[in-house]
Amino acid sequence: MPPLFHLLAVSAAGGRRGRLLLPHQTVETPVFMPVGTQGTVKAVPQDTLESLGVEIILGNTYHLYLRPGHEPIRRMGGLHRFISWPRAILSDSGGFQVFSLSSLRKVTDDGVQFRSHLDGSSHFFTPEHSIDVQIALGADVVMSFDECTEYPASRARVEESLRLTVAWARRSLDHFRAHSHDVPWFDLQVRRTQSLFGIVQGGMHRDLRRQCAERLVEMDFDGYAIGGLSVGEPRELTLEMISEVLPLLPKDKPRYVMGVGYPDEIELYARMGVDMMDCVLPTRAARHALLFTSEGRLNIKNKQFAEDQSPPDPACQCPVCRRYSRAYLRHLMNAGEPLSATLNSIHNLAYYLAIMSRVRKSLESESADQSPGR
Amino acid sequence: MPPLFHLLAVSAAGGRRGRLLLPHQTVETPVFMPVGTQGTVKAVPQDTLESLGVEIILGNTYHLYLRPGHEPIRRMGGLHRFISWPRAILSDSGGFQVFSLSSLRKVTDDGVQFRSHLDGSSHFFTPEHSIDVQIALGADVVMSFDECTEYPASRARVEESLRLTVAWARRSLDHFRAHSHDVPWFDLQVRRTQSLFGIVQGGMHRDLRRQCAERLVEMDFDGYAIGGLSVGEPRELTLEMISEVLPLLPKDKPRYVMGVGYPDEIELYARMGVDMMDCVLPTRAARHALLFTSEGRLNIKNKQFAEDQSPPDPACQCPVCRRYSRAYLRHLMNAGEPLSATLNSIHNLAYYLAIMSRVRKSLESESADQSPGR
Repeated sequence: MPPLFHLLAVSAAGGRRGRLLLPHQTVETPVFMPVGTQGTVKAVPQDTLESLGVEIILGNTYHLYLRPGHEPIRRMGGLHRFISWPRAILSDSGGFQVFSLSSLRKVTDDGVQFRSHLDGSSHFFTPEHSIDVQIALGADVVMSFDECTEYPASRARVEESLRLTVAWARRSLDHFRAHSHDVPWFDLQVRRTQSLFGIVQGGMHRDLRRQCAERLVEMDFDGYAIGGLSVGEPRELTLEMISEVLPLLPKDKPRYVMGVGYPDEIELYARMGVDMMDCVLPTRAARHALLFTSEGRLNIKNKQFAEDQSPPDPACQCPVCRRYSRAYLRHLMNAGEPLSATLNSIHNLAYYLAIMSRVRKSLESESADQSPGR
Repeated sequence: MPPLFHLLAVSAAGGRRGRLLLPHQTVETPVFMPVGTQGTVKAVPQDTLESLGVEIILGNTYHLYLRPGHEPIRRMGGLHRFISWPRAILSDSGGFQVFSLSSLRKVTDDGVQFRSHLDGSSHFFTPEHSIDVQIALGADVVMSFDECTEYPASRARVEESLRLTVAWARRSLDHFRAHSHDVPWFDLQVRRTQSLFGIVQGGMHRDLRRQCAERLVEMDFDGYAIGGLSVGEPRELTLEMISEVLPLLPKDKPRYVMGVGYPDEIELYARMGVDMMDCVLPTRAARHALLFTSEGRLNIKNKQFAEDQSPPDPACQCPVCRRYSRAYLRHLMNAGEPLSATLNSIHNLAYYLAIMSRVRKSLESESADQSPGR
């Protein structure tokens, strides 16, 4: 297999300008990945995502496993075909949603028993089963099955959780390697198959994070994620954990911080050397009237925008800011119109994508400035 | 003012291929007009409407008057600017929504007192006020204020309603003519201003319909609508009323049947000589899982589509049918995803527009076949 990741440039601060060579799409990094929970980035059509320049989206294994089910998706050729998204997809392991959405969750060494948040039906996820489901979905990048620790948690609780996460990472990797040709699109003359990332957990304990990272690096995953962050901890702790883990990860493999964050956070982490990030925030905030702009956050329901004919963000070049006014977006939100979620989401995603585009350009020029030839 | 309507060809059955020269758009007729109730065709972005070839949409005076209000819209330059829709708009008079949505409705010769369905606030609409609101909104075509008769209704009730509708039509016209330069975009060097259509009422009584049509034609409106249909009557009655009224209307002016209908209806009426129609059906049905296709109506929630990878309508060239499968649309609907309403609505609108496009071509060729030169 050709290498998954090309490192193109590194800044003095450790920021990395790279390129992920995924089966369905070459992805320029650092990249922000919009979340398509149930096989759709909420309220945004696929062609709009394409025109915004989105190269990779997330799919949630837990949601798609429950509805419509991974077997129907496998029979239909995998998630790309099912949702008509030809570019790259990353699937999570389901671990986080089992932790946050399901009820009557019971964890053993073997796996997790839980009840569906939809109908109360009982399900059992093991690392092997999570990988099987993710192979059926056929995302370009899949994640090892991990145990998420709540925040705050005692050291004993985090240690136990870490033990499971490391054991499950090993089992995820072994099962993935044994079935690496099972992905629905493998027979389509595509030479590459899926990639598997390990997830570094360890709560808010630097030594446990370090321990977990070292164990996972020994296993030689295709890439490494840092999970269990943005779960309610102060932002300084998030930053501390990321700073602790990044130097331990192999330079030639992609690094993914899961579930972050606000616009200033994704810029900060990208400049520190994080290659991939995802978050529901831009789309979820959009549905709740919160717009991210170069002038700060706007609550578009605010009365002050009732007759404001300026674009949501005068500095933004997105299709929403080029066409619509704050007054119109406010009206759509107040009138409960479905177009409100669509337009707000398009702008917020464009805002996030523009940040990453700017960071990529900046990393290129910073690195060029440092080169001996200049 | 240059003529509003060009009649290009007439078929043996009376079907008319025409062209409406509106200030914001030349509209090819017969035309189906999507309904943009609150300043948005529900769940469909404006650029999508443009790419579908939509040339004119409806705005509802009652809804826009209540929220955000016609005065803010006037101050922002009118509805076209407010909703960023540069093509044509037709506004209704508010009469139908006052009749169907508001509570505590009290009709006098002067006008209608009613309570808002949103907050219970009290409002009074006269013909003059309806026209003032419609001038503030600035649609290309505005409608005279009418009294809608419920179905079924006694002859006495219809006669009284008709008396009001005719009197209000006169007052609408006088007020409109006295204020024809007040439209927000009149100062923008546009030589034409709004057009006003009269509305033929008369319940399900042929003689009353005839009486109303004759009175309105004497007043010399810019165009004529047939209202008070599709209110629960059997379809034969709808057809009978349209057949009765059409021959009474001047051939050189556009004819608009309000609030119809199903795909076969709009084709039928267009072939009989109706130039304009509007209906919430394609978008409302879409939000309730009903798709109109060349294979008949599909309830996309149906289990039989769970793994159906064919397009919603294999004969349709719309962007939804070119990209997505029945299985995916079913999943979006079942998962309660907002994209469901968007994609279903785009297909249904495209289906309606394709019918009218086919009818226009057919009317051209039928008329050509009849021409003496062939």
